[in-house]
Amino acid sequence: MAMLINGQPGEQISALDRGLAYGDGIYRTIEIRQGKPRLWAWQYQRLLADAARLKLPLLDEALLLAEIVQLAAGVEQGVAKILLTRGVGARGYAMPADSQPTRLVSVTPWAGYPQGRARDGVNVRWCDTRLSCQPLLAGIKHLNRLENVLARSEWSDPDIHEGLMLDQRGLLIEATMSNVYLVEGQRIVTPRLDQNGVQGMLRDWLFAHVPQLGYQLDEADIAPARLWQAEQVFLSNSLIGLWPVARIAGQALPAGHPCCQQLQALLVLQA
Amino acid sequence: MAMLINGQPGEQISALDRGLAYGDGIYRTIEIRQGKPRLWAWQYQRLLADAARLKLPLLDEALLLAEIVQLAAGVEQGVAKILLTRGVGARGYAMPADSQPTRLVSVTPWAGYPQGRARDGVNVRWCDTRLSCQPLLAGIKHLNRLENVLARSEWSDPDIHEGLMLDQRGLLIEATMSNVYLVEGQRIVTPRLDQNGVQGMLRDWLFAHVPQLGYQLDEADIAPARLWQAEQVFLSNSLIGLWPVARIAGQALPAGHPCCQQLQALLVLQA
Repeated sequence: MAMLINGQPGEQISALDRGLAYGDGIYRTIEIRQGKPRLWAWQYQRLLADAARLKLPLLDEALLLAEIVQLAAGVEQGVAKILLTRGVGARGYAMPADSQPTRLVSVTPWAGYPQGRARDGVNVRWCDTRLSCQPLLAGIKHLNRLENVLARSEWSDPDIHEGLMLDQRGLLIEATMSNVYLVEGQRIVTPRLDQNGVQGMLRDWLFAHVPQLGYQLDEADIAPARLWQAEQVFLSNSLIGLWPVARIAGQALPAGHPCCQQLQALLVLQA
Repeated sequence: MAMLINGQPGEQISALDRGLAYGDGIYRTIEIRQGKPRLWAWQYQRLLADAARLKLPLLDEALLLAEIVQLAAGVEQGVAKILLTRGVGARGYAMPADSQPTRLVSVTPWAGYPQGRARDGVNVRWCDTRLSCQPLLAGIKHLNRLENVLARSEWSDPDIHEGLMLDQRGLLIEATMSNVYLVEGQRIVTPRLDQNGVQGMLRDWLFAHVPQLGYQLDEADIAPARLWQAEQVFLSNSLIGLWPVARIAGQALPAGHPCCQQLQALLVLQA
């Protein structure tokens, strides 16, 4: 792994960083292809939006991009991670007036997930862990991720590829590391993320691109039973791309709808 | 500041630690008096309970205590902090099977809060930030503290000493860094913490000790209006001890009830 911390090579941060003390920060994972971050403009927009929500200082786009490209030199396929915290602070929850944010950029080579998942679909389960409702944090990819950690700890079977999560209201929100979509004719619906959930970069990308293929994407309150009426269910995440769901808790979903494959074909063309 | 990381002097942790990546860990702050942690047995019990809830490995009591005492040598008055994470892990939410926990112990000299607060009472405000409901994490002093950070960021007036927090249901739960109690005759009530909130060590201590003074302490669902019927309201936290509340949002509460002062007198006798 190659890493820069505030622009300097290193792999350690201060034990007094508020990212550790309180999870007071945000992050993003980014696919690297041939030394470059994919869909960078979309990733950067999400970073900016999340930083603004938590009153973190704005990030210089050129600086971030230069650091990623520096670390990704010679990396054919890999993962970049950007993590931004409110920096080192004295004890106590109050945001320090004079804190310098901590900026962590890393790149790791990585061969990606098995190709079969994007082609044949994945097996998912239901998680018992339910997401809480917190409008102030909903959608942000912040460092308070214990709910996802607990949900992911519910299974260890390698043939289960993801876990769907409901919230306290009983609504479908996301999977542990991906957003979820239901294809209903020419309409695609995805859970509203105003109470919880993580707004993935590819979710934004899909909102902008599905109309090109004649689909319409809408946010909705989605009860779990609605999954079984869908013509196709698929997941999105910047590293997995788009995965159709083949089975939920062992039960097969309809196969053969072209929507996810069409979107994959469009996505593969993106730099 | 003096710090030990996994027993070794140092002030940095791996940037790959899950405590930073996901807030996957717990912590405790402890008052130091004359080189020793106060109410250690109570603090250790809370650490054990929280570690078990998050499936973190058990902590050796003698080792932790020895590290605190080592760092606190010659410190008349100060603050110790113990922070335990699930350690360094590969990318992804799944708990690594072979992770070694990260144990961080630090001691800082500190003169304490102004004495007048414990004697004359404090001014508190209402926070707009509402706590979410999450039974799986309720009560745990974990590293996912963004709600507290947002609540504490609502004011900067140094004459406001704490902020009371409601939850999504509209119930009183705690203050940003302390537990809250209402004195109603010989009965004291404190919010139930089965949906959210942090179970402070002194809260446990109070449950065990108020009967000695002829009081009874009960958990309850507490609507905010009930504060105005109380004969006294007070706060607890291992560093502040017990603070009576003098004013809420500028409005004076009844003064002169002996309960908090009686408990302070009992607390001061504890090692």
